[in-house]
Amino acid sequence: MASLSFTPAEKPVERPLPMKLAALVLDRPTPSFAGVLTRNAFVGAPVILARRLLDFDHSRGVLVNTKIANVGAPGGLEDALSVQAAFARALGAEADQIFVLSTGIIGWRLPVAAIAASLPEVVSRLGADGPVELAEAIMTTDSYPKLRCVPLGGGHLCGVVKGAGMIEPNLGTMIGLIFTDVSVDRKTLRHALADASAESFNRISVDGDQSTSDAVLAFSSNVLPPVSEQEFREALTPLCRELAQDVVRNGEGTAHVLEVVVRGAPDVRTAEEVGRHIVNSPLVKTAVYGNDPNVGRILAAAGSRLGRLHPGADLGRLRLSIGGLTVYRDGGFRLDTATEARLSAYLRDCALPEVRDYPPHERNVLIELDLGLGGGEARLLGSDLSHEYIRVNADYRS
Amino acid sequence: MASLSFTPAEKPVERPLPMKLAALVLDRPTPSFAGVLTRNAFVGAPVILARRLLDFDHSRGVLVNTKIANVGAPGGLEDALSVQAAFARALGAEADQIFVLSTGIIGWRLPVAAIAASLPEVVSRLGADGPVELAEAIMTTDSYPKLRCVPLGGGHLCGVVKGAGMIEPNLGTMIGLIFTDVSVDRKTLRHALADASAESFNRISVDGDQSTSDAVLAFSSNVLPPVSEQEFREALTPLCRELAQDVVRNGEGTAHVLEVVVRGAPDVRTAEEVGRHIVNSPLVKTAVYGNDPNVGRILAAAGSRLGRLHPGADLGRLRLSIGGLTVYRDGGFRLDTATEARLSAYLRDCALPEVRDYPPHERNVLIELDLGLGGGEARLLGSDLSHEYIRVNADYRS
Repeated sequence: MASLSFTPAEKPVERPLPMKLAALVLDRPTPSFAGVLTRNAFVGAPVILARRLLDFDHSRGVLVNTKIANVGAPGGLEDALSVQAAFARALGAEADQIFVLSTGIIGWRLPVAAIAASLPEVVSRLGADGPVELAEAIMTTDSYPKLRCVPLGGGHLCGVVKGAGMIEPNLGTMIGLIFTDVSVDRKTLRHALADASAESFNRISVDGDQSTSDAVLAFSSNVLPPVSEQEFREALTPLCRELAQDVVRNGEGTAHVLEVVVRGAPDVRTAEEVGRHIVNSPLVKTAVYGNDPNVGRILAAAGSRLGRLHPGADLGRLRLSIGGLTVYRDGGFRLDTATEARLSAYLRDCALPEVRDYPPHERNVLIELDLGLGGGEARLLGSDLSHEYIRVNADYRS
Repeated sequence: MASLSFTPAEKPVERPLPMKLAALVLDRPTPSFAGVLTRNAFVGAPVILARRLLDFDHSRGVLVNTKIANVGAPGGLEDALSVQAAFARALGAEADQIFVLSTGIIGWRLPVAAIAASLPEVVSRLGADGPVELAEAIMTTDSYPKLRCVPLGGGHLCGVVKGAGMIEPNLGTMIGLIFTDVSVDRKTLRHALADASAESFNRISVDGDQSTSDAVLAFSSNVLPPVSEQEFREALTPLCRELAQDVVRNGEGTAHVLEVVVRGAPDVRTAEEVGRHIVNSPLVKTAVYGNDPNVGRILAAAGSRLGRLHPGADLGRLRLSIGGLTVYRDGGFRLDTATEARLSAYLRDCALPEVRDYPPHERNVLIELDLGLGGGEARLLGSDLSHEYIRVNADYRS
């Protein structure tokens, strides 16, 4: 990874506001960069700026700050441009080649002068830190750094991600940074990132919303020979899936990760919407939290969404299984005391311990629903709904 | 209300399954009956049967049982038909004139023989009980009976409702029964009930889903002279709104009732979907529970839904107020320590006490969002998300 430099600045830039800065910088501008940004209609200044920057010819990298998301603050765009310009000056780069991403409290203004004063130190440390330090530097309420690297061609494809649900005092953010030294042309990178995100970052839900600031950026330094587009995609998509899964597994208050697979839908959109509705159903989420195989709630949630999308759909061929065990088929539930006991044991086995520095296991609660209506399929990941979730989201001020 | 008879049967029909039966019966068959049924695609036998019965010329009324919802149970439709036939026999009515509604656990079969054996007692008590007893008889986990009556013409328009979120061990249900002695023709009643429900029962959310069994039925005995259609609607719609509000206020685990008004949407559908998304957002719900005026979460939830419906919408004219206090306008938040303290005090003032036999007050947390995009408007009611909600929904078995 010699051609990529990244650095975290551990020192808070301002008291009493402990803020971290992290940078991922390429030695030379690259045309091979891509981004997937939140579809939220109410977005922060960094996202507005990033939309513009994606049209430029080259990029040198990105600066990330924690603690303040720069959303809905008066003068937010001007502040983002000031930070961008200051970092470009410190690097000797062109301003339009620098992304700035922010995560944290919304409504507050960035401490632009304090950030600018810290940037020479950030630049001086470029190259001294590795991907693990980058993953650590972008953490906010995350309980552990999230980093995935795979060998690709003669080099590597790596990604770091932060985000643990929208659980910052005002708003949290998912930020993903993906980087490789393997050559990939701009168009291929952009299509591959869009497709991989659709299957990964866009298929997870902790709180049921895309935040105002979610962003995934990808960069290639283009210093090593390329691989085939297929090989690139076959590395990128699983990498994004694993990073996305890491985000859910590290969600604050997540006691179980739900993996919902909807098959047999009339189309992919229906499969995705039904799956998303199950994963976001508070009744399903609380039942899973309680290790309670309350299968009726899963069908009720699926039916609630399906009834809006396809009124009158015939569910006579519907099948539902949990952890591989069929619980509904041929128009009726297939449950008895022994089956319920097995399902409860399965749920308990999938639970994550309360305190965790790193994921203790990667077991998900697998819910498979075949609607028997067509060929549409989608896989969604989500978290359960726990007392801890309420505590971190409701009780921090009171 | 001489021409309407209703009765609850307080005695459990079977041990160890304490089940209640309640009946609302007209002295003579009426052509003036109407129903609004769940749009869930996965429905119980009573709903399947009710869909058919709405096409018949006359109805005599409805029998309601608690404890078992008759959803997803093998032979469920046959069981519903058996109960219907038995009640018709006991009444001396035609079977196709009798609705049967069920609420409770899904997947279990109705104890048909035990129910049938209790029906002569139900019939013998018709006329002995009043609307309050009916409202009590249909309660399940509701903590108090929900009944609203208004004078209309020379008589009355009354409604009872049960439901407190989908919080029964497997599934809960909202059931509403509306009845009047004022004449109203069938077509007027059906249109008025559909419109009133769209503004009331379809605008509330405790768990984000329509259940598998939700049903509202309305009957007129047609014994008193009619009022104008406008007068009828102006009585029915507020009655349904109040009953719907009662359901939310009595939601188990509800510590605050949220009233979200979305204005200035491109159309009514957008207003409703954005409002529903705010009301169902776990981040908004937990913040309100914690008496935390976390206004960023409201805009993030609105933007998340709006971004899907109208990508690129210009939110420059967006305004947000809470309890009448403007917190966002002209592209930025308008918050300071004093405003936040006032908002927190407002939220605390809207809180419901933990133990309540009847609603201690009818104050809602009023969230008003003007998107500044058009003329679409919708009003949604929902509940917050509390530790008590998690407890009743997750912990009942573990």
